[in-house]
Amino acid sequence: MRLADLTGPADLLSLTDGQLDALAADIRSFLVESVSKVGGHLGPNLGVVELTLALHRVFESPKDTLLFDTGHQAYVHKLLTGRMKAFSTLRQEGGLSGYPDRSESEHDVIENSHASTALSYADGIAKGFGLAGAAHRRVVAVVGDGALTGGMSWEALNNIGGAPDRPVIIVLNDNGRSYAPTAGALATHLGELRAGRGGAGLFENLGLAYLGPVDGHDRTALERALRRAAALDRPVVVHCVTRKGHGYAPAAEDADDCWHAVGTFDPETGGKSASGGRSWTAVFGAEMTELGAQRPDVVALTAAMLQPVGLAGFARRFPDRVFDVGIGEQHAAVSAAGLAHTGLHPVVAVYSTFLNRAFDQVLMDVALHRQPVTFVLDRAGITGPDGPSHHGIWDASWLSLVPGLRLAVPRDAEELRTLLREAVAVTDGPTVLRFPKAQAGPAVPALRREGGMDVLHEAPGARVLLVPTGPLADPCLQAAAALDALGIPSTVVDPRWSVPVPEGLPELAARHELVVTVEDNLSDGGLGARLLRQLSEAGAPPTVRTVGLPTEFLPHGSRTALLRRHGLTADGLVARVGGWLPQAAPR
Amino acid sequence: MRLADLTGPADLLSLTDGQLDALAADIRSFLVESVSKVGGHLGPNLGVVELTLALHRVFESPKDTLLFDTGHQAYVHKLLTGRMKAFSTLRQEGGLSGYPDRSESEHDVIENSHASTALSYADGIAKGFGLAGAAHRRVVAVVGDGALTGGMSWEALNNIGGAPDRPVIIVLNDNGRSYAPTAGALATHLGELRAGRGGAGLFENLGLAYLGPVDGHDRTALERALRRAAALDRPVVVHCVTRKGHGYAPAAEDADDCWHAVGTFDPETGGKSASGGRSWTAVFGAEMTELGAQRPDVVALTAAMLQPVGLAGFARRFPDRVFDVGIGEQHAAVSAAGLAHTGLHPVVAVYSTFLNRAFDQVLMDVALHRQPVTFVLDRAGITGPDGPSHHGIWDASWLSLVPGLRLAVPRDAEELRTLLREAVAVTDGPTVLRFPKAQAGPAVPALRREGGMDVLHEAPGARVLLVPTGPLADPCLQAAAALDALGIPSTVVDPRWSVPVPEGLPELAARHELVVTVEDNLSDGGLGARLLRQLSEAGAPPTVRTVGLPTEFLPHGSRTALLRRHGLTADGLVARVGGWLPQAAPR
Repeated sequence: MRLADLTGPADLLSLTDGQLDALAADIRSFLVESVSKVGGHLGPNLGVVELTLALHRVFESPKDTLLFDTGHQAYVHKLLTGRMKAFSTLRQEGGLSGYPDRSESEHDVIENSHASTALSYADGIAKGFGLAGAAHRRVVAVVGDGALTGGMSWEALNNIGGAPDRPVIIVLNDNGRSYAPTAGALATHLGELRAGRGGAGLFENLGLAYLGPVDGHDRTALERALRRAAALDRPVVVHCVTRKGHGYAPAAEDADDCWHAVGTFDPETGGKSASGGRSWTAVFGAEMTELGAQRPDVVALTAAMLQPVGLAGFARRFPDRVFDVGIGEQHAAVSAAGLAHTGLHPVVAVYSTFLNRAFDQVLMDVALHRQPVTFVLDRAGITGPDGPSHHGIWDASWLSLVPGLRLAVPRDAEELRTLLREAVAVTDGPTVLRFPKAQAGPAVPALRREGGMDVLHEAPGARVLLVPTGPLADPCLQAAAALDALGIPSTVVDPRWSVPVPEGLPELAARHELVVTVEDNLSDGGLGARLLRQLSEAGAPPTVRTVGLPTEFLPHGSRTALLRRHGLTADGLVARVGGWLPQAAPR
Repeated sequence: MRLADLTGPADLLSLTDGQLDALAADIRSFLVESVSKVGGHLGPNLGVVELTLALHRVFESPKDTLLFDTGHQAYVHKLLTGRMKAFSTLRQEGGLSGYPDRSESEHDVIENSHASTALSYADGIAKGFGLAGAAHRRVVAVVGDGALTGGMSWEALNNIGGAPDRPVIIVLNDNGRSYAPTAGALATHLGELRAGRGGAGLFENLGLAYLGPVDGHDRTALERALRRAAALDRPVVVHCVTRKGHGYAPAAEDADDCWHAVGTFDPETGGKSASGGRSWTAVFGAEMTELGAQRPDVVALTAAMLQPVGLAGFARRFPDRVFDVGIGEQHAAVSAAGLAHTGLHPVVAVYSTFLNRAFDQVLMDVALHRQPVTFVLDRAGITGPDGPSHHGIWDASWLSLVPGLRLAVPRDAEELRTLLREAVAVTDGPTVLRFPKAQAGPAVPALRREGGMDVLHEAPGARVLLVPTGPLADPCLQAAAALDALGIPSTVVDPRWSVPVPEGLPELAARHELVVTVEDNLSDGGLGARLLRQLSEAGAPPTVRTVGLPTEFLPHGSRTALLRRHGLTADGLVARVGGWLPQAAPR
């Protein structure tokens, strides 16, 4: 049977071994071909072809619940549940999500891209099935070894293992990697288990039965193990050993990350398309290496994403001063506080969306202790094809609730370098820089610095003050030029440090009729909201309008398209300001 | 030697066994006597007298770093490091903190009351000492078995066990309890280890040496084990078995929580002082039991605090429908989402400050999935004697950033009951109720309901609109009466559901000259800030003033005193409104 002929997982039951092998090959070719055109998580999905076939033959989705942790390994599951034809739209606006999505299929349960959640979901679902007298419905969580390093997995294992009568089936997809090889003692222990040297093993100590190790590319062995697990009728781990990128040499042989997530590429040669310009990540990475050479007290932390956050160069140069803590943002923050306690200056480089995991730790363990830790948030703001759980649109709002914390948004590469230097010069509390998943644009020079802020544009008799954060300075300047031409003179000021509200900003604002803040973040709790309250408390404020993102989950789509939809473009700003200004009283 | 003669930990080195035993007895008497007068964490500290003596004899603080997880078990440490004389001020405004506090002593490192952080701090400090060539400085983390159920502990163990050259010493203070007996598979495993049946054991599987079990009340055995641990020069767990409340019968024999934390009591009889009135917690607990009887789909979750959050009655009545997940707020939120996925309505009862641990999970796993989970936040707002890390003053701000989430603050007991009913009637996303650590005051009747809000007071020609959240309705009504008498007529409206901003509130606000929101939460991101932005975007807003808490860490002190300091009283409000009103233009 060809993939194209498959109507649903039930079709798999009648296939012969030979037909299933052919189907597996067909799926791999299709994955390589499809992802080469649109980009996506290739390596993880090439690694779970046989596993996903086995799962759908042994279990009956959706009666049985299949959970993927994280969802980036669910492409094969999507293909087997009737979504092949839509695959050309993967991660495109309006198209298939790169993660499970309940609006796409009754076979999808968890929509999130954040790791280490499936075991907790599984525990809850198993409890629910138990109460409903539906314990015959199996709950199966496919969990990567990397996801197991996240603390929530531990909380869940403690609960799952503590309830011998709730038969959650944990399929440990052990490919030895998060992006990079999995960090820490767990990886060592899994290595011992793989080698058959684990003794009773961690899982049995936690009350879980252990089956394995199983060759994750031997579908027959996988099915045998899964059937045995189901028959045990108690919590069990099935330890499957897979290879990321299996079956496609350019991915399987890539030492960095086995093509964990890729852009477009040539499927024949594995040649990846060049990306234009220089990413914010690359600018940060290069500056960190410079900084590391000058400041021996600067150390770096990553939560299982050394390469994606730009720390590979720093790690090569200063291997003793970089710490990969596994998928543990909580630990990253608190161990950074511990490092700071000894007089070092830690830089924690993490995706914006994942720092949400460490709100309490940034608040209580870093800020309350006034520890000088710098957080560098990549993928801040609209992030694009990875969808609602990858957009980094909350950080600037919740971080502004943390007493003593300072946050800056660089508008160009040079500012990123400068602000990083300023951040690591702070000695009495946390600092944060944020930048998007994008190319750093051309330099945006300042006319002058005023009260810590950079004035980027000023027209005589300015009526409007535009306050962009970070790279939105560029569309604001374009908007300012257009407004000037329309006879609406304006000032554009980059606050640089936007948490707390710069001291001079309220006064500057009060000299204009209309103040427009422009942020790639929620408007709720953003700079505009905070500035407005300060102005209001001071009495008789100018009109303040906040251009930012609504408090909603945003879909996947290109960053450019999503920015446009929310008016975060020069055109959008001109149109809005024009609409608002009649309301502002002439002075 | 008597406790009163001790000048510091160095004095302990020259004492004989007999003298040390006498000192231990003296410490216990002093603890019982002191805590009986001011309240505090008695049980945990009675359990660590010998352990803390041993720690300070084997290690040399502050050269060696001693960390307590959580800090509520640090009273003996405080006594041994020169703070006996200040003990009468424990948890009083301006007095000794109930947790370690760096401003009190060079022997204190972590100030936080949140569990499961010490191992991460220890990992960071050990890394720092390593880089500084100061690996001879020992890093010792005293961690309760309850704290080990928290996910961050796992992230830390994975890092500590993965680095054999960083000799972190983990002193596992295993008393078998959080508040209640420790939940889950870990507790079972520790029981096996206590019985000498652990095999290699969990810790050895994670790369840690294991010493024990040691009788935690045998100081000589403890010292021997700690010295051996120090000599190993690698990561090690010293498993100490202690008894909460040891040496004081009323605590040791208490089945509920061994006097985990108590108010004042009679030290002779153990008779606890009666508290006046009925707490919010008790009102919630009673209503949950009612609700449970009527709604078989309602289930309850707690993170190791069944009794303190008021779920004991529900648990007695519906033992199958209550889940204690251990100290794992992340897991509580996500497993609740899983339960909701099966059609149940979970109520997660947790202290406000601890829900900060689950920001990402509330956002991504509950709200993105539109799962109907109700969070009931006890200890919301100013919490009093437990200090900066126990004040629940962030929740209403960050929760308002979660798309689709609804939050209500009941003003009296009846409203708590009604709002709980409304919350569990919601089927398409998370709901939150919050109330303080206080007695529920007398009923505050509404004049009428308007647009979902309760109008509590209205004077003809009202110039001021007071918008209290929850129990602050009472001081607002007193203020309104006083303002009426001063010739400043006002309206008082309880928004009931304050996230999102009630639909009718902006319009009601626009009918007044001055709007004053009154919140027991940060002003940043609070109802006032959000209302102000809505009014501003709508053009020509009335003057809005937000009375709430500054974005600062608040010290410990009585709730009454702290509310007064921040103007959250009738007097405070009258004074402020009188000062503001001249600025508002007459209509």
